[in-house]
Amino acid sequence: MLENRQLIDEKLTQAVAILQEQDVDLWLTFVRETSMQPDPALELIFGSDLTWPSAFLITQTGERIAIVGHFDSANLHALGVYTNVIGYHQGIRDVLVAELDRLQPRVIAINYSESDVAADGLSYGMYRNLLNHLAGTPHQERLISAERVNFALRGRKSPTEIARIRQAIATTETLFAEVSAYAKPGMTQREIAAFVQGRIGELELDYAWPKPFNPIVTCGPASAVGHAAPGDVVLEKGHLLHMDLGIREADYSSDLQRMWYVLDDGETEAPPAVQRAFMVVAGALKAGGEALQPGVAGWQVDEVARDFIVDHGYPEYMHAFGHMMGRVAHDGATVLGPRWEKYAGICELPIEVGNIFTLELHVIVDGRGMMSLEEDVVVTETGVEYLSTPQEALWYIDG
Amino acid sequence: MLENRQLIDEKLTQAVAILQEQDVDLWLTFVRETSMQPDPALELIFGSDLTWPSAFLITQTGERIAIVGHFDSANLHALGVYTNVIGYHQGIRDVLVAELDRLQPRVIAINYSESDVAADGLSYGMYRNLLNHLAGTPHQERLISAERVNFALRGRKSPTEIARIRQAIATTETLFAEVSAYAKPGMTQREIAAFVQGRIGELELDYAWPKPFNPIVTCGPASAVGHAAPGDVVLEKGHLLHMDLGIREADYSSDLQRMWYVLDDGETEAPPAVQRAFMVVAGALKAGGEALQPGVAGWQVDEVARDFIVDHGYPEYMHAFGHMMGRVAHDGATVLGPRWEKYAGICELPIEVGNIFTLELHVIVDGRGMMSLEEDVVVTETGVEYLSTPQEALWYIDG
Repeated sequence: MLENRQLIDEKLTQAVAILQEQDVDLWLTFVRETSMQPDPALELIFGSDLTWPSAFLITQTGERIAIVGHFDSANLHALGVYTNVIGYHQGIRDVLVAELDRLQPRVIAINYSESDVAADGLSYGMYRNLLNHLAGTPHQERLISAERVNFALRGRKSPTEIARIRQAIATTETLFAEVSAYAKPGMTQREIAAFVQGRIGELELDYAWPKPFNPIVTCGPASAVGHAAPGDVVLEKGHLLHMDLGIREADYSSDLQRMWYVLDDGETEAPPAVQRAFMVVAGALKAGGEALQPGVAGWQVDEVARDFIVDHGYPEYMHAFGHMMGRVAHDGATVLGPRWEKYAGICELPIEVGNIFTLELHVIVDGRGMMSLEEDVVVTETGVEYLSTPQEALWYIDG
Repeated sequence: MLENRQLIDEKLTQAVAILQEQDVDLWLTFVRETSMQPDPALELIFGSDLTWPSAFLITQTGERIAIVGHFDSANLHALGVYTNVIGYHQGIRDVLVAELDRLQPRVIAINYSESDVAADGLSYGMYRNLLNHLAGTPHQERLISAERVNFALRGRKSPTEIARIRQAIATTETLFAEVSAYAKPGMTQREIAAFVQGRIGELELDYAWPKPFNPIVTCGPASAVGHAAPGDVVLEKGHLLHMDLGIREADYSSDLQRMWYVLDDGETEAPPAVQRAFMVVAGALKAGGEALQPGVAGWQVDEVARDFIVDHGYPEYMHAFGHMMGRVAHDGATVLGPRWEKYAGICELPIEVGNIFTLELHVIVDGRGMMSLEEDVVVTETGVEYLSTPQEALWYIDG
């Protein structure tokens, strides 16, 4: 837990600034038994688990108050980032109401959101418990959604978060290099995925999304596109090998896609159609990345990449160009997606400095397979910095 | 996912019987992006993750309906335990309301609970989404808590669940035997815990509660009692070594505590006060286990064990005698605890056939350390069957 002290201190400092910016008096995170009922916000402001009902109160004036069961108060004191740690013995109600009475917030922002799961950590049962605790007090009428607080706090990565993501990406790139040495025609998707999962196990890494679908391995034209588990399709000469891999290292994720081509008998490079598809996909990522700037809306970035693909004669991809990444691969609200109903609202959100996005899209190469690339970038004052080393040419596997 | 087909089929069959028994027309589990926002009920009735908003409808008449994003419908079909799999493309609202219109349930039980986290998987944001979807329909007025459905479904273990827990316990007992061979005076709590965690990693097991506190290792009188992470206290001659370890294997847990004594120079067995403490703790577990019967309330079992300890001259333990165990160590509502405010309601619940409980308590031996044992049992028609092999004598470590 203590290894996260600096990270949590950074996020709490950010949280206070966000409350000031949004003029929210108080942000309340109210949780219990978090190993079974996690609140995504808690990872950022505490970073460990709690058993008894616990309340974290962050105020616009900079107070950081943790009200926890007495068993947990030593851990909170040891963490040393809360200005006030209150351990209770019997029940949380009286202590919580006393703190609210002292603070007299005009609004109390709590963790619920209809649109963003990462801002929706309060269960309905816990919401009812909170209403019961606040019954008969003026605080009951002051509850609002902390959705915008959570959007900003999750989305704007702190220096420690960026450093950890950079490390997860570097590790992932090492794994891709190992795949280059390992993969041979005749292997199945399942074998190639198992090799990567074996290495992830040996390195004691976690997964950025669930293991059955991580990595996604696509071999040639017979593979399903999308969220399919690796199966028995065999890698063949003259086919593309695609891998979508995301690991989690020190609680932060990567999400990258890389492409290999298996040389056919007599070939020394991929056929022109394969090479052209690679260049168009890589070019679209680059063009989209150049459009990614603070203040721009997500859909505007998607549009640049989408137009690039269509202008080069390929059909448009039926998903978003990018998503936020953080503690897991899909982490945060803003989507670099088209203005389809499915992305309503979240593709209109403005891009902010410190946001980390994936850039990804694919085309299909007839008879060869899927050509899909994905890079990870952080938004700076002037554009983006690549956290991954962009793949600039196909990698070859000897046939 | 398919390795869980039988388990999920068993639980769905159970769920229908529970709906009949409780006269609940329809049980609705409503989820999204479950890798970040898990619903504990979903583990039992699906066992994998979903991205788009998804609805699982189980009816008293035996219908098992899954409404999921079209990406996921192939997985649901492959699982083969749902009578009706509906994949949607645009939004879930119309499909969900159409099914409800067809079924016309008098009540719709949804996953919220003020008292039990395992029955409280619906987030407040998702509850609001559900209300929005049902606005203008009669179904809006039909929502009730599925708390009792979840209590019964989680608490009554199916044959596959019992078999998996039995396996997790057997593996844990092997790990204890390895600790017996490994632990030596001069080692710190941290070293001993690291050895076990290393083995858990090699065996590719998971943890029944979070790794920083698993195993809990207590060495001699200087160790903190309770939820403390292993530290630098050194195991010494003449001291007790205690370990509280729970693993997860094939998604099911163990939770056991074992005791060792480090022989001092010239000793061939533990001093009388240490031996007596062991016999009293083991005796209290046995007496409590004998009181554990279907239909008895949790507090009645606790009382037998608590009285046993106090009658033998030790102070009573300040926690419950036992808790339900399943997919994680603390899993299910019923607690074998005293009628303290903290256990109100949940210590009154009746014990049912198929419930799996821990039996645990401790006493302190002056100058020697904590004496704490924990066994795991399943409730049968006539009493309990031990799933662990009860520790019947102290294990010795040579000094």
